Amino acid sequence: MTDVVKIYLKKDISSINTFLKTNTNSFSPLVKEITQHILLSGGKRVRPLLTLLCARIQGKTKDSIPLACSLEMIHAASLLHDDILDDSNMRRKNPTAHTIFGNNATILAGDALLARASRIAAEYNNAYIVKLFASAVEDTASGAIDEMYHTGDAELTEKEYYEIIIGKTAKLFEFSCRMGACCENAPIEIEDALGNFGLNIGIAFQLVDDSLDYASSSEDTGKPIGGDLREGKMTLPLILYLQTREKSERKAIKKAFTEKNLSAQMQEEIIYNITHADFTQTTRNTAKQYIEKATQNLNSIADCKEKEILLQIAQYVIARIN
Amino acid sequence: MTDVVKIYLKKDISSINTFLKTNTNSFSPLVKEITQHILLSGGKRVRPLLTLLCARIQGKTKDSIPLACSLEMIHAASLLHDDILDDSNMRRKNPTAHTIFGNNATILAGDALLARASRIAAEYNNAYIVKLFASAVEDTASGAIDEMYHTGDAELTEKEYYEIIIGKTAKLFEFSCRMGACCENAPIEIEDALGNFGLNIGIAFQLVDDSLDYASSSEDTGKPIGGDLREGKMTLPLILYLQTREKSERKAIKKAFTEKNLSAQMQEEIIYNITHADFTQTTRNTAKQYIEKATQNLNSIADCKEKEILLQIAQYVIARIN
Repeated sequence: MTDVVKIYLKKDISSINTFLKTNTNSFSPLVKEITQHILLSGGKRVRPLLTLLCARIQGKTKDSIPLACSLEMIHAASLLHDDILDDSNMRRKNPTAHTIFGNNATILAGDALLARASRIAAEYNNAYIVKLFASAVEDTASGAIDEMYHTGDAELTEKEYYEIIIGKTAKLFEFSCRMGACCENAPIEIEDALGNFGLNIGIAFQLVDDSLDYASSSEDTGKPIGGDLREGKMTLPLILYLQTREKSERKAIKKAFTEKNLSAQMQEEIIYNITHADFTQTTRNTAKQYIEKATQNLNSIADCKEKEILLQIAQYVIARIN
Repeated sequence: MTDVVKIYLKKDISSINTFLKTNTNSFSPLVKEITQHILLSGGKRVRPLLTLLCARIQGKTKDSIPLACSLEMIHAASLLHDDILDDSNMRRKNPTAHTIFGNNATILAGDALLARASRIAAEYNNAYIVKLFASAVEDTASGAIDEMYHTGDAELTEKEYYEIIIGKTAKLFEFSCRMGACCENAPIEIEDALGNFGLNIGIAFQLVDDSLDYASSSEDTGKPIGGDLREGKMTLPLILYLQTREKSERKAIKKAFTEKNLSAQMQEEIIYNITHADFTQTTRNTAKQYIEKATQNLNSIADCKEKEILLQIAQYVIARIN
């Protein structure tokens, strides 16, 4: 990103962080501690930035910071619950909330955070925003359930994989953009253009994530390498690899997943094969195609500083290494 | 309840059940199964009935069935999560959802159900309803967290106990009534009167619940007797009992709760003392006082069939034995 963009975003990121901290200060002590543990541990703030920029494309009139932050809160709440489901110990180089505060408190803190986010969105007195908000939460939860349902399913198709990542990740990117547009009463064509932009960079974002899980060192991501494989999570690098194997081998892997006894040696072999056959790079290339689609989605939007920054964020999504 | 009331409510309960079933049919298979497991297992439907009646007091114009059902969905979602937190095996004489479907799927199904409920409320295009809805969810989650935070706290005061039960239970009763009123744009005095009615019967409802936990046989409640004590849940019968004991004994019990080693003999002794000193009846008597308050809350409401039924529901809350 250029320095101008970095300076532009720095001010917003600072406003986002301030709002998130101040707003969660009013929770009861334990909920405050848990929600701030996840919210103030240095997320990238991509979702709220999308909301702010999409609102400003319409000319800035309303204060869109709270609405933007409500999207980050949905994201954080889903991370609190997801880390319990995946039993993940580390996130952003920190121990995950449930390893510190226990599962029970973390489940409830996630619930309270979701409710708070929904209250913030409701303050805009715009029924359409609230409907979008509720759909974002439902789609994100449903996506996570679909993913869980297909854990260890070595026969998962690419089509099913895309349905899952659209639900669990890309829809929230789409809604982040749509909400910004709605906040300023954008015409439906503009809202759709920005929404599709969000959807496509959301898909790309998850593809890069899934690639990094096999390709990046834990020093960069703050998570152990090959975590998805150990959890039986079917992501594109693994799906592409399995497509090259015999049906009997896929069945054996599915069995090992089901019985939770995929040996360390088998894991290493799969990780080695995936990275050396460049399925991580293929996954990144696919992400690049979605970023191209996203770029095209903005063709109908008049040139302005915010559009320029949205395009740079799209490039950042594909360039990131952690 | 009189036969006329039973017939009046029967029709509504049937409409509520039909809506809950039809609406959850559109979830993905696993979420559908989990949400229907809890929603269609014979709850008393008190919350949605309150919403319907409070809407009709204003003269029925809008269809308040979906809104009423969204309240039952919040309740069901909180039960899904609570049963995980309490590790309860039985509810309404059925195995709890997480014992059948596992914790992970049950957490996410709760999330999806909350989101669906919020979308239904948003369909009324009334920002105030959405704000009430979000507050109801946040208060319910916060109350559950406060309760968890004070698990085994043998020094809990009555004041703190009431704060907890207002959050985890009574606020949802209050909001059920308020939402009905808002759905028909009731003047604020009417909304407040109905809201206070709901709050007071909500407190009474929880007091009766907490009394039944010590007093009722599992045949009636579908739950094992003394479950609250085993979980270290500080409820009024136990608080009243502890107030009669020496400080040293309270400390010993607190220690046993903390170390999770309250012996079976000690449990039996406490349960025996509580029931024989009639602390369960004292708790019921306190509930009766809240029902009297609730009855007074309706003084400003003009006489009508719905008011009559609300008053009968209040009497049902205090009379119930399961």
